[in-house]
Amino acid sequence: MVTAIILMTVDRKRINELAQELADIEGVSECYSVGGSYDLVALIRVRDTESLADLVTRQMAHLEGIEHTETLIAFQAHSRHDLENMFSVGL
Amino acid sequence: MVTAIILMTVDRKRINELAQELADIEGVSECYSVGGSYDLVALIRVRDTESLADLVTRQMAHLEGIEHTETLIAFQAHSRHDLENMFSVGL
Amino acid sequence: MVTAIILMTVDRKRINELAQELADIEGVSECYSVGGSYDLVALIRVRDTESLADLVTRQMAHLEGIEHTETLIAFQAHSRHDLENMFSVGL
Amino acid sequence: MVTAIILMTVDRKRINELAQELADIEGVSECYSVGGSYDLVALIRVRDTESLADLVTRQMAHLEGIEHTETLIAFQAHSRHDLENMFSVGL
Amino acid sequence: MVTAIILMTVDRKRINELAQELADIEGVSECYSVGGSYDLVALIRVRDTESLADLVTRQMAHLEGIEHTETLIAFQAHSRHDLENMFSVGL
Amino acid sequence: MVTAIILMTVDRKRINELAQELADIEGVSECYSVGGSYDLVALIRVRDTESLADLVTRQMAHLEGIEHTETLIAFQAHSRHDLENMFSVGL
Amino acid sequence: MVTAIILMTVDRKRINELAQELADIEGVSECYSVGGSYDLVALIRVRDTESLADLVTRQMAHLEGIEHTETLIAFQAHSRHDLENMFSVGL
Amino acid sequence: MVTAIILMTVDRKRINELAQELADIEGVSECYSVGGSYDLVALIRVRDTESLADLVTRQMAHLEGIEHTETLIAFQAHSRHDLENMFSVGL
Amino acid sequence: MVTAIILMTVDRKRINELAQELADIEGVSECYSVGGSYDLVALIRVRDTESLADLVTRQMAHLEGIEHTETLIAFQAHSRHDLENMFSVGL
Amino acid sequence: MVTAIILMTVDRKRINELAQELADIEGVSECYSVGGSYDLVALIRVRDTESLADLVTRQMAHLEGIEHTETLIAFQAHSRHDLENMFSVGL
Repeated sequence: MVTAIILMTVDRKRINELAQELADIEGVSECYSVGGSYDLVALIRVRDTESLADLVTRQMAHLEGIEHTETLIAFQAHSRHDLENMFSVGL
Repeated sequence: MVTAIILMTVDRKRINELAQELADIEGVSECYSVGGSYDLVALIRVRDTESLADLVTRQMAHLEGIEHTETLIAFQAHSRHDLENMFSVGL
Repeated sequence: MVTAIILMTVDRKRINELAQELADIEGVSECYSVGGSYDLVALIRVRDTESLADLVTRQMAHLEGIEHTETLIAFQAHSRHDLENMFSVGL
Repeated sequence: MVTAIILMTVDRKRINELAQELADIEGVSECYSVGGSYDLVALIRVRDTESLADLVTRQMAHLEGIEHTETLIAFQAHSRHDLENMFSVGL
Repeated sequence: MVTAIILMTVDRKRINELAQELADIEGVSECYSVGGSYDLVALIRVRDTESLADLVTRQMAHLEGIEHTETLIAFQAHSRHDLENMFSVGL
Repeated sequence: MVTAIILMTVDRKRINELAQELADIEGVSECYSVGGSYDLVALIRVRDTESLADLVTRQMAHLEGIEHTETLIAFQAHSRHDLENMFSVGL
Repeated sequence: MVTAIILMTVDRKRINELAQELADIEGVSECYSVGGSYDLVALIRVRDTESLADLVTRQMAHLEGIEHTETLIAFQAHSRHDLENMFSVGL
Repeated sequence: MVTAIILMTVDRKRINELAQELADIEGVSECYSVGGSYDLVALIRVRDTESLADLVTRQMAHLEGIEHTETLIAFQAHSRHDLENMFSVGL
Repeated sequence: MVTAIILMTVDRKRINELAQELADIEGVSECYSVGGSYDLVALIRVRDTESLADLVTRQMAHLEGIEHTETLIAFQAHSRHDLENMFSVGL
Repeated sequence: MVTAIILMTVDRKRINELAQELADIEGVSECYSVGGSYDLVALIRVRDTESLADLVTRQMAHLEGIEHTETLIAFQAHSRHDLENMFSVGL
């Protein structure tokens, strides 16, 4: 399982449509409009990196109105009360 | 329910300990070490803004090694196949 | 009650019209043209986050000439001579 | 009357104390801890620029933990349903 | 008397015309083309903030070729051998 | 196989020692001192993300003099004359 | 005659003392504390570049509390109703 | 032998085509689509600086969709278990 | 004699033509295409500031493809084995 | 022959001493204190990249007071009235 957080600044006029289009992409588990220096945040959970590459460079590439993206690929998940302390996200 | 995404750059020497300390805070639902221009990303889901204020300005304030934080407060969640198209995160 | 401060850089040719259009939006309690690295600052006070989401992603989305916005969502108000020291903004 | 908005990044460990110390300064009408790329926002309303200069360069200068400030001085207030369209803040 | 320093980056092809157009505006006491990360610097000395607001949001708004401005509003002037040490700019 | 490019700015006084220490870490396939806005670039090729997490958050965490890092995790390799056009890096 | 505008961010605790120390340097014709992303602005008018070099690298070098400076050296002054349209500042 | 790392932000809609076009250029030994604040990273290994100049200013200049590039030219390669400790990249 | 270093980012498609056009301007003593966060660097050596102003605001203003310039005006040259330690560039 | 331009921000208190120390390094052909967002600019002309690596990572590494450097390595020199139009700097 690969986890990534995509931070986006977008065309303000398309913010709601875009958020919905992102949310409808398979692999986007959550999509938020946010305050701060970004407009939208998408949480990606896909099976493997082929799927991540496909999502970012093919499916998202066709959406109109995304001005800037920064993709943060997780290489470790940290969870509470974890007996083994940490486990890899299986990136 | 209030959702926030906290982006952090941290002291590299404390990255794993810090990630675990964050993950152990009530209200931090997920914590990832990531590639890109941030080091750690924490997903916060708390009951109301009193809890968010308490988490950010009191509980996180005592952690050593956080150099910079940017808190993105969600004001709308967008989800797939949603009949009503969009629902508020109840921020 | 949700409080937010929206910092904007705008098309200089529309600065006055835009300021007035912003001031006329329900929920914008004050709007200032300012010196510094932003052009306009709007103070938002709305009932709940549904209203904030509506204001930012629908009403402001139709205004012409806003180039960049940064929305600072307040999660705590601090007031003078406050017996309880601090109260939440009820975000 | 002079209006100014002061954006601050601060030492996270002092965020609540600092917010309260700012709120207690005469002339600071409101002080918020916020999400985004700043930590605190103070709204200043003082009689004249002597008072603003005194507040920024003397009173705030003694507070511990303010790392960076950006002072946005308003030169015009825009208000809703305003017969005269716009009035100066009397800066 | 209100003093402000306006830093500008401008369309290189209009730098000289623009400098002259700025210099011809009442209230612009000096205008320089400069080396560094800005192209033009204008010194503004006007009677009151109504005049400053008018100069920045109306007169300068019609000039072609200004790409970015940062307006530094002075809130205190410091002068040499000053018996009273400091005097307000009467902003 | 996981590929990552780590961009670093470092303490100038330790640039050569640090470059050698990085080059000696298992998984760092190449390390260059470079001109531009970074000082060192390390190419990482490791078996899986557990190894990447270990390299970045444990082995590199103990090196003295690294001031800032940006980790670019590859999610697709593109190669010349490739019959299948593209193949995943097997991240 | 050489004209330069020096933009400074300074230690907030020394802002008034520093402004006065700058104002007392021969060649500093005006010094302002300002709102915006800088704290102090000094206008320099000196006879020649030897004097400017001396002022910046020797006299200002001994002042405590200046954190960052950006020196904008004017290479042309533009003035109103100027018969010859423009004259060099004689830099 | 000259080694350079070229960091690129590109038009998202052309990311895959561009990556392949880069990979097909003689001298580009590897090309990756990456997460983080860049989109593509190309590793260049050419015989001499004439070849590097030709690659960057002629061959890459004709590719559509590259928005920003930063070329990091290696001036030293550091390798593991190296008897001579370090050798020049023969730049 | 006035010395200045002009740092430029330019339209990649015109980098070679532009470099040659710059080199052909009287007063440009050297012009380099460079790696790093700039594309071209021009060294200017002209008789006086009138010539510098003319070069930057008139001759360079007509060149196509220059996106951003930063002009660093030298106010002192430091040379090796210099009996008088330092001499002014006669700016 | 390798040509490089090194842009530096330095400790203001050491600007003159540092400029002289740089100028005294073999391979530094010119060193200027400049106005703008950098403090010092050094022009490097050395025989080969071994010499450049030695100069940047060994000789300059021991100088006190250099806060930030950006090394622009030239990969092509463009000169006036050049019969062959362009020649490589022999980097």
